[in-house]
Amino acid sequence: MDKGEFELIAALRARGGAEREGVTGIGDDCAVLPQRAGFESLVTTDMLMEGVHFLRLDADPFDLGWKSAAVNLSDIAAMGGSPVGTFLSFALPEDLNSHWVDRFADGYMAVSGDCPLLGGDTTLSLDRICINVAVLGECPAGQSRKRSDARLGDGIYVTGPLGDSAGGLKVIMEDLSRGEDERTLVHRHYHPVPRVEMGLALSSIKGVHAMMDISDGVASDLRHILDASNVGAEVEVAKVPLSECLRRCASRYLWDALELALCGGEDYELLFTADPLSQLPKGCTRIGTIVSGADIKWLGSERDYSHGFVHF
Amino acid sequence: MDKGEFELIAALRARGGAEREGVTGIGDDCAVLPQRAGFESLVTTDMLMEGVHFLRLDADPFDLGWKSAAVNLSDIAAMGGSPVGTFLSFALPEDLNSHWVDRFADGYMAVSGDCPLLGGDTTLSLDRICINVAVLGECPAGQSRKRSDARLGDGIYVTGPLGDSAGGLKVIMEDLSRGEDERTLVHRHYHPVPRVEMGLALSSIKGVHAMMDISDGVASDLRHILDASNVGAEVEVAKVPLSECLRRCASRYLWDALELALCGGEDYELLFTADPLSQLPKGCTRIGTIVSGADIKWLGSERDYSHGFVHF
Repeated sequence: MDKGEFELIAALRARGGAEREGVTGIGDDCAVLPQRAGFESLVTTDMLMEGVHFLRLDADPFDLGWKSAAVNLSDIAAMGGSPVGTFLSFALPEDLNSHWVDRFADGYMAVSGDCPLLGGDTTLSLDRICINVAVLGECPAGQSRKRSDARLGDGIYVTGPLGDSAGGLKVIMEDLSRGEDERTLVHRHYHPVPRVEMGLALSSIKGVHAMMDISDGVASDLRHILDASNVGAEVEVAKVPLSECLRRCASRYLWDALELALCGGEDYELLFTADPLSQLPKGCTRIGTIVSGADIKWLGSERDYSHGFVHF
Repeated sequence: MDKGEFELIAALRARGGAEREGVTGIGDDCAVLPQRAGFESLVTTDMLMEGVHFLRLDADPFDLGWKSAAVNLSDIAAMGGSPVGTFLSFALPEDLNSHWVDRFADGYMAVSGDCPLLGGDTTLSLDRICINVAVLGECPAGQSRKRSDARLGDGIYVTGPLGDSAGGLKVIMEDLSRGEDERTLVHRHYHPVPRVEMGLALSSIKGVHAMMDISDGVASDLRHILDASNVGAEVEVAKVPLSECLRRCASRYLWDALELALCGGEDYELLFTADPLSQLPKGCTRIGTIVSGADIKWLGSERDYSHGFVHF
């Protein structure tokens, strides 16, 4: 394992990305990063367990590396911040080979882009892989977007089509033969792109109020904004953006595309509320309105998507 | 597990400690903390795996909670910084009871003191417990003490007696009957005290150069300072501070107390180098000198402790 540990650290450092001036990364008791007047630090952390979040035999370690960094970078995006550095903790069984470690590192660094790996921990596990990633980010003071900032009359928006990731998971779980559409959905499932640039653009617009990322599905995630802001919502289900791929697969396999879009999760698009008069970036779609009360009304549908999947 | 997850978060939040003004903790996509001009952020993270770092049946969850926070707080202390917030990720098997979670939270918060829990992640594990803690700290810019700053002629110092933790582990592993001395050593093993205040005091003294915490034992940890600083060391083994408890147990059980002190680890005292003319706080003991070369000479001993334990 010690060999594996050094291999992993070497593999990751070799791909480490440029460090910012004045930043000390791997190699001391702590990473050291300068603070700046007028800025806020953002911190998020997520754990992935073999057998719960992924199956080793099924998972390409590249995808796992990608996802373990992506879900955390997405949390930074959801606050409207820039990622500054990532921290990777890793418990590895003795029998993992160095190809696995290399592929994991490739995926992890591919989605990290310019954001360097600044520290972490590697240790032995008796059997299952456990991964924990923490990301430090920052944004101008007062500019981070919280879940509690939704206001009555705000439009409710999403930054891209929803349901592709859940569609990809159906392709995988039902072992469907993979044409171009199916492959696209599977790719969207394994390689969610954290919307960091979009989050930065949105947090620079005053009219954008509450924001979060869509990890569990709009039906579940919108609930967090409503609870934190003490408001209700009306969602016009016909306005929920769906990709052409998902539409075609839904009609091919008789999927309920709206259910996948609203209850499926793991799209890692941003969900936000904004003054309807705001000038929003291209790609944002209004799907509803913040109203008084505490409930979500699903306009144009017989279904109450708040209860999650009916089948699946 | 969801119940357990909420219980854990509730148990920890209830003990959460005071948050600093302008700090947002648990409940959004990220924790948010103000940055300050003239300060640096410090980040460290450590993972503990059941079966590797602890045995569930043997470990009191209070001790485990204590240790998982303490080893990270010690890394902040080793840089000369103040801890600002902790982040706890946790994979828990379904059968863990709420008593376990409560005890863990008690230990975790007991050692955290004023440093609040600001975030984390809880998830299901199929069998083994996995714990990851990340700590964010800070210090005045340029004041953090790195491993690479040792200078020729520096004295080598430690902040307290060494070997108690390794002695405690021997009491546990050899199932020795526990009189007062044995109980003291076991307590020192389970409840290492991160030397945060001492680290702050030392980092305010200009003559203090390289610093780190003793997690693996002086023989192994001093190596890191020497490698990073391109220097060698002479250690006078007779000057290594040993507690009276450890001396008595060593003579009772024919232990090699120096071996425990130099190779045992987990004392979490600080190891630092300083200009011998520095006015150092009470409790610091000089054990050697930084010299040219790359080796460690163990003056006054036939043994070369660099190779670690001979038996044990």
